[in-house]
Amino acid sequence: MPKTWDIRSGEIALDRDPSDRPDAGVVFIGRIRSPWRRREDCPKNIGKARETGRGAMIELEPDFAPALSGLAVGQPIVIMYWMDHARRDLLLQTPRHVTAPRGTFALRSPNRPNPIALSSVVITELDEAAGRIGIDAIDCLDGTPLVDLKPWLETVDIPPA
Amino acid sequence: MPKTWDIRSGEIALDRDPSDRPDAGVVFIGRIRSPWRRREDCPKNIGKARETGRGAMIELEPDFAPALSGLAVGQPIVIMYWMDHARRDLLLQTPRHVTAPRGTFALRSPNRPNPIALSSVVITELDEAAGRIGIDAIDCLDGTPLVDLKPWLETVDIPPA
Repeated sequence: MPKTWDIRSGEIALDRDPSDRPDAGVVFIGRIRSPWRRREDCPKNIGKARETGRGAMIELEPDFAPALSGLAVGQPIVIMYWMDHARRDLLLQTPRHVTAPRGTFALRSPNRPNPIALSSVVITELDEAAGRIGIDAIDCLDGTPLVDLKPWLETVDIPPA
Repeated sequence: MPKTWDIRSGEIALDRDPSDRPDAGVVFIGRIRSPWRRREDCPKNIGKARETGRGAMIELEPDFAPALSGLAVGQPIVIMYWMDHARRDLLLQTPRHVTAPRGTFALRSPNRPNPIALSSVVITELDEAAGRIGIDAIDCLDGTPLVDLKPWLETVDIPPA
């Protein structure tokens, strides 16, 4: 990184890699076990993932399992996951679904200064002791690191009209 | 950290501080300028912040400003910000609004292994060249580091019913 060789026409990258000088550190609290083993198998977004009817499983690091206390099957949650194959230096990019280059912050692309993806999902299974949480769908590769999970709250997670 | 001296009754902490051995690095892409200068002045959540009628301003690091291209005033966005005063070792905690200790992942508390807060807000002003984005409300301290901003999308950010 930066992988200047695979930049597309109209895309613009920073002249540095943001990962070279981090301001703070994240820990991986677990991994997402998904049905998607290759990048080309991954659904393009969580909506497409949901259409496949296939769920996924979060496996927490064992010492974080007590922090699940209070969650319940059927509850909506927000998950944050670290897109560890993404590049972090793109300012303007052209994903396949857009026609002209667009700013990274105007896209949900995994390629961003901090490659943290965000999805709202529903808990389908919960084994608190084992640190395992089933979720209704996910769009990322099997093994993707998890960074956080939080209860989804209508008052916080839906912007004002 | 860990600040074992201020643990409350029933709270449980890890025997390590997750920030000691990070798995990846985040960069601060900017700062949030908010009306809240002291912790005790901060609204308890974005809903309470909105009730104050006071907006906030995001100031991006200058070299990230081009990545705003494609955003517009009135657009809903999700912002991720780094709660740099939080502790990262709590597994069970008792914020003032709950009666019994609850797991960290069942709470929106800033105290969590990766202290990344998440709010859905609306863009009220946008100066792309200057890297300044006005937002309708925020609940964090003035100067809080920004980690990401993304367009809010109903299909991704509202869980299935």
